[in-house]
Amino acid sequence: MIKINGGVCAAKGFTASGIHCGIRKNKEKKDLSLIFSEVPASASAVYTTNLVKGAPLTVTKKHLESGKAQAIICNSGNANTCNANGYEIAEKTCELLAKELGIPQDDVIVASTGVIGQKLDITPIEKGIPSLVKSLSKDGGDDASEGIMTTDTVKKEIAFEFELSGKTCRIGGIAKGSGMIHPDMATMLVFITTDVSISPEMLSKALKTDVASTFNMVSVDGDTSTNDMVTVLANGMAENEKIAEENEDFAIFMKALNSVTVYLCRAIASDGEGATKLLECTVSGAKTLSDAKKIAKSVVCSSLLKAAMFGADANWGRILCAVGYSKADVDVTKIGVFLKSKAGQIEVCRNGSGVDFSEEEAKKILSEKEIDIEVTCGDGEYSSVAWGCDLTYDYVKINGDYRT
Amino acid sequence: MIKINGGVCAAKGFTASGIHCGIRKNKEKKDLSLIFSEVPASASAVYTTNLVKGAPLTVTKKHLESGKAQAIICNSGNANTCNANGYEIAEKTCELLAKELGIPQDDVIVASTGVIGQKLDITPIEKGIPSLVKSLSKDGGDDASEGIMTTDTVKKEIAFEFELSGKTCRIGGIAKGSGMIHPDMATMLVFITTDVSISPEMLSKALKTDVASTFNMVSVDGDTSTNDMVTVLANGMAENEKIAEENEDFAIFMKALNSVTVYLCRAIASDGEGATKLLECTVSGAKTLSDAKKIAKSVVCSSLLKAAMFGADANWGRILCAVGYSKADVDVTKIGVFLKSKAGQIEVCRNGSGVDFSEEEAKKILSEKEIDIEVTCGDGEYSSVAWGCDLTYDYVKINGDYRT
Repeated sequence: MIKINGGVCAAKGFTASGIHCGIRKNKEKKDLSLIFSEVPASASAVYTTNLVKGAPLTVTKKHLESGKAQAIICNSGNANTCNANGYEIAEKTCELLAKELGIPQDDVIVASTGVIGQKLDITPIEKGIPSLVKSLSKDGGDDASEGIMTTDTVKKEIAFEFELSGKTCRIGGIAKGSGMIHPDMATMLVFITTDVSISPEMLSKALKTDVASTFNMVSVDGDTSTNDMVTVLANGMAENEKIAEENEDFAIFMKALNSVTVYLCRAIASDGEGATKLLECTVSGAKTLSDAKKIAKSVVCSSLLKAAMFGADANWGRILCAVGYSKADVDVTKIGVFLKSKAGQIEVCRNGSGVDFSEEEAKKILSEKEIDIEVTCGDGEYSSVAWGCDLTYDYVKINGDYRT
Repeated sequence: MIKINGGVCAAKGFTASGIHCGIRKNKEKKDLSLIFSEVPASASAVYTTNLVKGAPLTVTKKHLESGKAQAIICNSGNANTCNANGYEIAEKTCELLAKELGIPQDDVIVASTGVIGQKLDITPIEKGIPSLVKSLSKDGGDDASEGIMTTDTVKKEIAFEFELSGKTCRIGGIAKGSGMIHPDMATMLVFITTDVSISPEMLSKALKTDVASTFNMVSVDGDTSTNDMVTVLANGMAENEKIAEENEDFAIFMKALNSVTVYLCRAIASDGEGATKLLECTVSGAKTLSDAKKIAKSVVCSSLLKAAMFGADANWGRILCAVGYSKADVDVTKIGVFLKSKAGQIEVCRNGSGVDFSEEEAKKILSEKEIDIEVTCGDGEYSSVAWGCDLTYDYVKINGDYRT
């Protein structure tokens, strides 16, 4: 597995673009992105579990019934959700793009992100589509990742190269996600492209298995968005032997996919709204996988702990507290906690009780940008990892006045 | 029902005190409180559902098996939780107090609040108990409410007078609670006293019924504390006909109890860590009571909405979003949302979609100290209320460096 450049354009046959079409007032900010595969691709997606679902999700779900797609269009600046005509606008967007690209309308995946509850005007999208399509290029991944950003402060893209049955394959992805992020089936917007040849069924199986331990284990603020979606397009242009069952190639593909998703999870968490630190909580020794996950998620979701991490305060009692209300089946008298970062590591809790430690050393460890919180349960064999970020003044600032 | 002064000392036969004994370094801050009934009282309590439970809760639970108690002692500055000898310290505290008061050790209720995971030294408590007992007075309710404060900025106390079978009865309470507050069976520390004559069984029934719609509907930060407890002492000195079944007097008592608990819920929420505003979410028209509660709690718990309320930003999409992930069975296309305060009211959402409204008017409404969020479901007959507060810079500040 080699890390390479190119993001969503790294895989053969994919081009992308991103432009400012006018949904946002600020002309400096791109607001419309496109990813295109030169041949139809196997396609799969997972969606938010929020009952309030963005209209684009409903349209995409319908389009993906065929298990294939060829283009992804996504706007930022307006979530096209909780408004009167969201569905029509989402379908119209697909129709206009399909016509411009000369592909069937139901081969288009559509997504939107931004403020909820405001009408989305089709005019800037309609006007923008011709130049969006014209701008498609092998170097366009960067622009596409920019066009889906909302409060994100950095672009999030990654790609890897690997081999399947002697053929060089590539997989890459971009993500948007900064606030309204909470694990509950597919968080944030993520678009993944690969030139691997794989059936829609196996692609769907790979994605669903993967998100359970990746995107569903990320939380920025406990708010599960209305517009979350993770999609994968696999266009087969690497010409590997088509993956149609759970064989060795499938395992390799899963690993490649996981490299992309874990990278994006960490990127999303560390760019959480206002975040100054990435928190990674690793739970081991849990009775079941579900218990391990509950504990890991509970820890990274605790507002109190997140604020303490911002202040580099080793207030580990809040970790125990979060374990205790996680609803995991766990013996709290066996719990151990370590705090780690590249500055070192300290044990702060053993068998559910405090251990003497140097506050000075703890401060040094917690002043780093990436903090690992290790929780040992001593109850069994199961492990899990969750990602989150600290809670800062800037989270409040960003969200105190998001719409203006 | 008349509001009166006196807090926990309003009811006949109750005295209280609060002193600085030395658990806290800051001598200006009281850290030990006592409430005493001159006769043994029916007693009941509800406790946090956190698996990590403070040692004082375990001791109190054991002591209340008899259904009676006569004194409540509570320290602040240290939660006596997740340390090696918490249980012994809690029992020792009861033993010392019982000896000083001349009552049985298991008639003492003990509680602690403060930082988790640090050893609690018995010395300051041991030294403080004689003067704590000596200070007991009818005017001591105020001192007692001060001695249980942690990050609270205001004392929380209330009392009411009412009649039962021709006798004047009184009920009063104090509360502590500012952070680590989340609904999940008894949040925060609340001590309620009454001179009503009622059996322990009926007292317990009254308390458990009441907290389900009061303290379990308050959230400051989503963190369910390890040390939460609500207790009631009823010493019978009002000499009403003893309540031993669900009769009319029981209904009147429930109402009086509810007046105390709702007042304290609102007081706790508006004094949430860093809070500048009290949020009250009223849900109506839900299919079931459980659905109504899930929606109300989900709305007041949303970090995004809480930050928007801080910024007086009518970002109602976040309310819909929170309804959508509440796990309530609800038809999102029927939801309506009103924002209200003493400055006026506006409709912002009808049938799940946005309604045009004046941003200026919304700003004015949301700039008040108490905001009502009304969610109508149009699905049924059930209602619920939940209380919370806004999310502010100060919440982050307070919790970024709590221990130092």
